[in-house]
Formats: sequence, structure tokens, C-alpha cells
Amino acid sequence: MNELKNRQVWLCSRPRGIPHATDFALREVALPIIGDGEILVHNRFLSADPAMRGWITDKSNYVPRVEVGETMRAFSAGVVTESRNPAYAVGDQVMGLFGWQDHAAVKPAQVWRKVQEPDLPLSLSLGVLGLNGMTAYFGLLDVLHPEAGKTVVVSTAAGSVGSAVGQIAKIKGCRVVGIAGGPEKVRRCVDEFGYDAAIDYKATPDMDAALAAHCPDGIDAFFDNTSGAIHDAVLRRINLHARIAICGTASYASWEPWNQGPRPERHLLVKRATMQGFLTTDYEELYEEAVSALAGWIRQGRLKYREDIHEGIESAPGSIEKLYSGDHAGKLIIRV
Amino acid sequence: MNELKNRQVWLCSRPRGIPHATDFALREVALPIIGDGEILVHNRFLSADPAMRGWITDKSNYVPRVEVGETMRAFSAGVVTESRNPAYAVGDQVMGLFGWQDHAAVKPAQVWRKVQEPDLPLSLSLGVLGLNGMTAYFGLLDVLHPEAGKTVVVSTAAGSVGSAVGQIAKIKGCRVVGIAGGPEKVRRCVDEFGYDAAIDYKATPDMDAALAAHCPDGIDAFFDNTSGAIHDAVLRRINLHARIAICGTASYASWEPWNQGPRPERHLLVKRATMQGFLTTDYEELYEEAVSALAGWIRQGRLKYREDIHEGIESAPGSIEKLYSGDHAGKLIIRV
Repeated sequence: MNELKNRQVWLCSRPRGIPHATDFALREVALPIIGDGEILVHNRFLSADPAMRGWITDKSNYVPRVEVGETMRAFSAGVVTESRNPAYAVGDQVMGLFGWQDHAAVKPAQVWRKVQEPDLPLSLSLGVLGLNGMTAYFGLLDVLHPEAGKTVVVSTAAGSVGSAVGQIAKIKGCRVVGIAGGPEKVRRCVDEFGYDAAIDYKATPDMDAALAAHCPDGIDAFFDNTSGAIHDAVLRRINLHARIAICGTASYASWEPWNQGPRPERHLLVKRATMQGFLTTDYEELYEEAVSALAGWIRQGRLKYREDIHEGIESAPGSIEKLYSGDHAGKLIIRV
Repeated sequence: MNELKNRQVWLCSRPRGIPHATDFALREVALPIIGDGEILVHNRFLSADPAMRGWITDKSNYVPRVEVGETMRAFSAGVVTESRNPAYAVGDQVMGLFGWQDHAAVKPAQVWRKVQEPDLPLSLSLGVLGLNGMTAYFGLLDVLHPEAGKTVVVSTAAGSVGSAVGQIAKIKGCRVVGIAGGPEKVRRCVDEFGYDAAIDYKATPDMDAALAAHCPDGIDAFFDNTSGAIHDAVLRRINLHARIAICGTASYASWEPWNQGPRPERHLLVKRATMQGFLTTDYEELYEEAVSALAGWIRQGRLKYREDIHEGIESAPGSIEKLYSGDHAGKLIIRV
């Protein structure tokens, strides 16, 4: 009986650098039995996020790594089908770290939130109303302190996080300049997301000149997902008291040993600038505030998003690799 | 008549890197005549500060550079001998950017503060009650947010700024570990300034091991005046949410092109850490608060300081070089 089986994507080898499809395999196991206080969640959407690379890297990172043989840790969104916890009823929609699998026996600590926006698609809770939107919200508002009239630069500007950063910065009255790869992404930044300008770094031999042209008053805030050459060019153009949020370092092929580059200390000193790493998980007590604001902007048509939905759990293993190749057209989600 | 002459140390060549005595020369000119709103200040003490290197470098820095032929910009402390400004009376003690000279015609904007601690030596207004003490005060309290029980690491820990940072951190209840060069400085950190431990980086082949030994609970805050290898070793041992104040980059032989090193972005992200450059001049509205607190701690015997006073304006030209050689035994001051 098919409905009693649970399909899981598990880690079958420890990747070096970017994880490939072959680092994962699919297995079928029995439906889990929930313990006291737990809920059974039937996942409808699985997420692929850049952070997952960190969860399986050989070096310790933010959280304990996923071990070979374990079901891949992942965000997913689904429906409660059984509950031994009075806080959750059958039929509740929930989002959290339920893994790449059809069904999950979930402890309360794994639940990020109950999804309570019935007018909006459940899949949004993995993107613009989930980790991506909240990352944009906290990174921009708490780390960068955007003020009306100031210039905000965003890298990976057409991505799920970047596009939310840029649009929220526009809502806050900033001048927003995006950096993205390829003419289609640049077009999307300007036409769909309403940026003041966008730079195609792949077609721009002189990033300094491009930034000078599009940021005539310098750069007050920088939301960076890349590190490397793009980061360095932006840094050269920051204003006094600029703020730089480190959200990701997508440009690095590997993390160990540390990548080499120009040391920022002297420049941070002369510009009295601040460079700060942040993680969305440090803002747990503010998740509902963030989702409420983001959902409000979506309903008003002021915050647009794109989803790139792949069908079937079989598309999960190759999804992280796809994130880093840059050829997805929105938040990468697997429908199961 | 000697008393009508004004001796000035002027910039006679643009130094590359650290300024040497030969980049300056002494001249005698007529006593300046003050204009409306100005005061005539008779300098008693001239200062030598690392920041002066930045003021004469070829690249633009914080402030307009000193041009060849001009009297060297410097902090000094003296007495008002003539006033055409109702806010200042003859006999007032003042500290500010009056230059390396005997007498200065001073506009109000050049005055940092009226010295109003008659029970304390005037020379302190160039050190622990001047730029050095205030730099420690603002960098530690505003940038690093020290909390009781947390571990604070200070580089150039026996210097005029570093020793004040470490002592104020002790007053705030922190565990304080200093990094300094040579056994005498290390002794001073522990015996005079009351640090919990100090590391002689010149005699320590493995800084990582030394930091691990002296900072068993990791490092929560780092006040850095060095950049380079010391900075990198401290960074490797920071805790989650660590804060790093960039006060100076004494380890760089030159500033252009940017020094290369390990990129901090990934580490700042994983540790959710903040690296911030700061300048004391951004805190002007808080100068009196700082001096009042610092003077209070001095009077209570909780904030100790050292002065290395050189006699005569002839010792000014070689003083910046001496700062970088590290062989001075306290705040370097020239008595004129």
C-alpha cells in the first residue's frame, strides 16, 4: 500500500564544496510513528536553500552537520495529519525543518511556525514568507537600518532573498541598485522588482565604473550574498558610516582554508563602517512580526516574488547544485 | 627678542609609509596675530599620535591632508595668552589641534575642549584625558558593549589607548587579555594595569595556542590596533555575536594597495559577528562625558597611565617614527 510508505532523500556521501545530486539517494521506509507531544506532518512542498550546503559540509558550521545515512535536513511545508500535541490540530498548516521526505514525525522544536495566511499559497512559507523573506526583512531592517534617500546595493539581486531586500528597501524610500548575473535577471530587477538600476556583473568588465554610474552619491548600505570581487568593488564605494550585511558567501568554491583577498580593516576604519554577519534563526521572537509585514506587502502588490516549482521528490537531490548554478528563475521549491 | 618668535615644525617632504624625522624641519617665524573670534594659545605640550601618519599620507584619509610647507597638524595643550573671543579668557587651559609650534592663532573650531581638571596635570589632556583615553572609552563602550564576565582582548595592550581599554574593561567586570610586544610591556599589562593575562606576541610562535590558553571561554570582544596576523588569530577564536572594534592598523607597512589576507566575511557570518571601524571625532558631543568618567577613575586610582615626556620641540620630528618602533614607555608627549 503506497500511502503507508514514506519516501526520504538521504545523504549518501559527504560532498566537498557544492553538493551534487549524486551525494543523495532516495529510499522508502515505513510511515513514522509519532511519540507523545509530536505531530505527523504530510509535506506538500520541500525547499532547497543555500544554507543546506553548510548543514552538510565537513566543517562544523552554524548547527550540527547532517550525517551520512540521515534524511536530508530541509525546510518544508505541509499539513498536520495526526497530532499528539494539543497545540496542533489535524489540518493545521505548518512550516519547519521537517526534512526532504513525504511524512515527518515532528517535535515542536522543529516547527518554525503555523502558517496562518489562508489567502496566500502554502508554498510561500518556504520563500517570501519563510526563510528567504525573513532573511531579507531582518538583514535589511535590523542590520542595515535603511533610511529614505540612502543608496542600498544588493547582490544576487534577482534571487529569493535579494529581490525581497530590494523591494523592502524601495518601500522604505531608498535608492536601490541590484547586482545580478545575466540580462534576464537585470531586467527582472528593474521591471518586476522596481529597482532604480541593476548591473549585470557578467557583462560588466569594470564594476567600479558601473557602481560609480549607478550610485552617484556613494553606497550607504550593502546586502551581500556573494563576497569576493563583487563585495570588494562595492566596498570601495561605500560612504562614511556605511553598513554591510553578510548574508552569504556564494562566490566561494570552498570555505577551507579561508579565502584570501583585500583586508577590509583599514577601509572600515577610514569609513567608520560596520560589517556584520547575521542569521535569521537569531530572530525567532520576531518571526511573526516579519511574516505579518511581508504578507501585508504581498497583499498590497508591493512585494513581488517568483517561484520555480519542480515536481516530485526525485528533483530534490539535484536542487542545491541548481541553486549555485544560478539558472533557476525564483525560489526553488519541490512539490511532493 | 626670543619671546616674539614662534618655532614651528613643518612638513618638508611627503613620506611614504611611516614618517621619519627627516620629513620635517624646524623654522622660526613671527608670533601670529589673532583675528576676530580667535585666541592665542601658548602650547606647553605637543602630542605625537599614530593618526598623524594618516594626516600626511599621500592618499586622502579621514581629513584633508597636511601639505608640504605647512606646520604639522597635531594635538597640543596650552594656555590662552590673548583672546578675542568672549568664550575664552586669558589663562584658560585648552586642548586641540594647535599644531607642532610654540604659539598658535586658534579658531574656536580647532579647540577640542577647555581643560577643567585643575587637580590633574595638563599633559593628561593629550593622553588619558585626550584622544587616547576617549578613543578607549568610545571604542570599548560604544562599539564593543562590554558585559561583566565576558572576555575582552586588546592589542597594543600596554599602549596609551590599549591600557585604557583594558582597565575600563576591568572596571566593567570583564576578563581582559592583552597582546603586547616584549616582556616589559606584558609585565606592565598584568602588574600595573591589572589585566587577567597578557601575551607577548614577539615570544609566542603559536598565537592560537596562547589565545586558547588565556581565553578558555572564547573571545567576546576585540579592540584592535594592529590588523594582520594578531587580528587573524583573535578572529579565529571569537564567540557567537562577538564584536570587533577597528581602531588602528599598525601592522601595515603601507596602506596602498590594500593589504591581502584571509577574508573575514564567512567567519563573521558563521559567528554572527560585527566588525566596526570607529573614530573618536565622531563622538564630539560626548567628549565631556568621557573626560568626566576617565578623570573620575584616575582620581580613584582605578585608571593608571604612563607618559613618556620628551623635552623640547626639537624632539617632535622623530616622534611619529618612535611610536611605530614600539620602544616608548607610555603616551609620547613633547614638552615645549
